[in-house]
Amino acid sequence: MPNPTAAMLVIGDEILSGRTRDANMFHLAGQLTKAGIDLREVRVVSDDREAIVGAVRSLCTVHDHVFTSGGIGPTHDDITADCIAAAFGKAIDVREDAREILERHYQKTGIEMNAARLRMARIPDDAHLIENPVSSAPGFTLENVHVMAGVPSVFQAMVESLLPTLIGGAPLVSETLRIERGEGDIAGPLGTLAAEYPTLSMGSYPFQLKSGKYGSNVVVRGSDADLVRVAIERLAASFPK
Amino acid sequence: MPNPTAAMLVIGDEILSGRTRDANMFHLAGQLTKAGIDLREVRVVSDDREAIVGAVRSLCTVHDHVFTSGGIGPTHDDITADCIAAAFGKAIDVREDAREILERHYQKTGIEMNAARLRMARIPDDAHLIENPVSSAPGFTLENVHVMAGVPSVFQAMVESLLPTLIGGAPLVSETLRIERGEGDIAGPLGTLAAEYPTLSMGSYPFQLKSGKYGSNVVVRGSDADLVRVAIERLAASFPK
Repeated sequence: MPNPTAAMLVIGDEILSGRTRDANMFHLAGQLTKAGIDLREVRVVSDDREAIVGAVRSLCTVHDHVFTSGGIGPTHDDITADCIAAAFGKAIDVREDAREILERHYQKTGIEMNAARLRMARIPDDAHLIENPVSSAPGFTLENVHVMAGVPSVFQAMVESLLPTLIGGAPLVSETLRIERGEGDIAGPLGTLAAEYPTLSMGSYPFQLKSGKYGSNVVVRGSDADLVRVAIERLAASFPK
Repeated sequence: MPNPTAAMLVIGDEILSGRTRDANMFHLAGQLTKAGIDLREVRVVSDDREAIVGAVRSLCTVHDHVFTSGGIGPTHDDITADCIAAAFGKAIDVREDAREILERHYQKTGIEMNAARLRMARIPDDAHLIENPVSSAPGFTLENVHVMAGVPSVFQAMVESLLPTLIGGAPLVSETLRIERGEGDIAGPLGTLAAEYPTLSMGSYPFQLKSGKYGSNVVVRGSDADLVRVAIERLAASFPK
């Protein structure tokens, strides 16, 4: 059975304006690979209702899972929860279970529960809550869309709460061979090898050496660890050190 | 006149597998903001023909510019140039001007020009070359799509070659106010202020203090610097230190 597929939707003007360097994509990509879920596409959109609803609708029909990051805080520009509800034609309002979680947290920490904070208990009908052990305000799963916070520490904690509940596939095995030759020298033998092993995926990721010359990390991926090993050894034999 | 809009398309399995942390999105976002070009959307797709062609076709009709990153090297998994040509129904082959640039570079550096390296001279018909002062193999612009390398040093050099040739708009002015209060306290006054200044965009970007408490950077953006200043001062007055 092929692995489940996934897309990620990063929501936030601050990423698109270059103010903030996104960290959640890299984190989620690594976690999904470990879990055997194939991340096929990422989109970054602004805090704009039409953009968010449109992206969710188009991604959730193509992929088994959609993971979102950002826009579920208490301020006026946090519109993700409403947009996800709209994308699925669901009602959204303050939900008792989410309100109780927030109230317990604020009582414990001595923070006043006000109208803005109560917005974080707005959860679409039929959604399941995603636990947030860092700052308590929950994320949620509606249909196949998992809605999480943008603050990296909170995002990561939510991913950790969520991932064990999803059914993954066989994790891909990957091995990397570092070759200190230009990609132009590597390309011929690598292309021949890739054609011989159609079930493996082979990629070349160049880097610059301090000398100014180029080398490349060649990554071979596949579900058959022995085959990956054989291909890496044959490649290494083509480029003796 | 509104600013031109843009999308970015990042191409590469290595980003989606979590092997590589993308750096080009953050760089391009900052450069476009300075140039007065509004980056509205980013997509990351794998080294897959259908995914690349589909994304280019859908983005290039909606935005004034599309910037791509990755997949124009010499190896078998570098398929971006062919995909861009296919997206616009153009032929692609080794082009004399690109081949001359590569030959000059390889003669100078004593590197052998082989079939793999010659692939980097494959340029779609009617495209304009984008100069690459780092490693010479050029990018190109076809219609409103600007095709650049994935290696960050090369990507950045190509952006620097390209941006002065594009017509930008008025750069947005932005000011940031650091408020050491939880977003739940900031949200009310900020929402009221945002409603009073509909031409300004206001965003709240929370962070965690060492004490474990939260603060937030509130960013006010707009094309009228005086108005941005007034709004920031009014907000500061609501949250005396």
